[in-house]
Amino acid sequence: MARNKEITLLLDAGEYSFLPSLSVDCVIFGFHENQLKVLLLKHRYLNIWALPGGFIYKDEPTDAAAYRVLKERTGLNEIFLQQFHVFGEPHRSEKEFHLQDLKRDGIDVNEDHWILQRFVTIGYYALVEFSKVNPSPDTFSENFTWWDIHKVPALMLDHRKILDKALDVLRRQLNYQPVGYNLLPEKFTMPELQKLYETILDKKLDRRNFQRKILSFQILRRLTETKKGVPHKAPYLYSFDLKKYLKALDEGLNAGW
Amino acid sequence: MARNKEITLLLDAGEYSFLPSLSVDCVIFGFHENQLKVLLLKHRYLNIWALPGGFIYKDEPTDAAAYRVLKERTGLNEIFLQQFHVFGEPHRSEKEFHLQDLKRDGIDVNEDHWILQRFVTIGYYALVEFSKVNPSPDTFSENFTWWDIHKVPALMLDHRKILDKALDVLRRQLNYQPVGYNLLPEKFTMPELQKLYETILDKKLDRRNFQRKILSFQILRRLTETKKGVPHKAPYLYSFDLKKYLKALDEGLNAGW
Repeated sequence: MARNKEITLLLDAGEYSFLPSLSVDCVIFGFHENQLKVLLLKHRYLNIWALPGGFIYKDEPTDAAAYRVLKERTGLNEIFLQQFHVFGEPHRSEKEFHLQDLKRDGIDVNEDHWILQRFVTIGYYALVEFSKVNPSPDTFSENFTWWDIHKVPALMLDHRKILDKALDVLRRQLNYQPVGYNLLPEKFTMPELQKLYETILDKKLDRRNFQRKILSFQILRRLTETKKGVPHKAPYLYSFDLKKYLKALDEGLNAGW
Repeated sequence: MARNKEITLLLDAGEYSFLPSLSVDCVIFGFHENQLKVLLLKHRYLNIWALPGGFIYKDEPTDAAAYRVLKERTGLNEIFLQQFHVFGEPHRSEKEFHLQDLKRDGIDVNEDHWILQRFVTIGYYALVEFSKVNPSPDTFSENFTWWDIHKVPALMLDHRKILDKALDVLRRQLNYQPVGYNLLPEKFTMPELQKLYETILDKKLDRRNFQRKILSFQILRRLTETKKGVPHKAPYLYSFDLKKYLKALDEGLNAGW
């Protein structure tokens, strides 16, 4: 089937399957070897990069839709997604812009087509170790790439705004949520943990302040072994105290009065 | 006009004015004289209490809809509302239940009426000094009351779940957001501030731990004057350092590495 015929049929079917006016978009941050990246897709039929996103079936919970969309579009599974913000500006979908995009790609839809209606989108985000997850594109996605957070290309609609907000929320949460359990090896040094924070925050931190602050959260266990095979004095190894880590994740760092 | 005719016309008009599938609900917590309450409305035509909520005009930002709904239904203005969660379970609106409710009140709508469709709702919350705000009911609301948080009556649909989630978010935020600027007098004692926290958290706190922790946030200024007209040793008065308070509100308590 011609690609524009195929996409037109799929677009038409959507009107009967999906909840009107609502979508989900996922910001998947990846950390690996002290780099922070974000997973972006390029639609097979559209020449622009986008966050993995999609629609909600008429009988589907919104949170389940986010997991399904992520799984369908990227193959990623078992990633903990967090709702972080609703984007509800009336002109965020930019109907005219979208229409031109589709037309340029040879896809004709009526001006009142449901795909061109106003969509409020629910933003979800996650932070993963990107060498441990294996995205595989769906039939719509020509291409997907982990983009360095500093080199993100032009994005569809208001996806840049959604990405920026997610990054802002992620950085803010470092103040009251622990991070690192699924990102670092089981045993790590204080400099390795500091580097994770520096990478997310995109700035250098003072070594002593960092150590004092992170130890005050009481989520770390200092091991008796030290790191081998490094020059100079062998640094201590740490691991997370999982019970305390999970409690802090649930209640907040330094929570409780 | 007969009341059921009136409401039927209004319900029908909604389909053309509002975005489908989406609503907003507001949880307004009120603090006054060491009591925590929540503002609930009883609809003129329905015999059940509910959170102030409503729909989103087709060209209206979702956040603006929340402010408008709150203003229209309660007269409350200039209250800072925070998005806190999206409630997107498919059966949260309980179509059959809603239909029976309407029928019992003599309002007949078709099974496929837009008011009976699935609605995803965006929850907003605020915490105000309730003696300073003056709610006034709209034409739909027979009655509105500040309910003690321990004595909330049966609520419409899943509004109890929305209220509980808002309370949970409010309590959790005490760990990383300052509170009190719009709730306490300009000058207050440490026991008055502690009582505010105890009221929100619904538990007694240790006096010394509380003082140590709250002072560590560096958002308070101890004044040279002491509280007059109290027995025993006159307690110190404090006020918020507004600049630091606002910074902590924006970035989080003890933020920064």
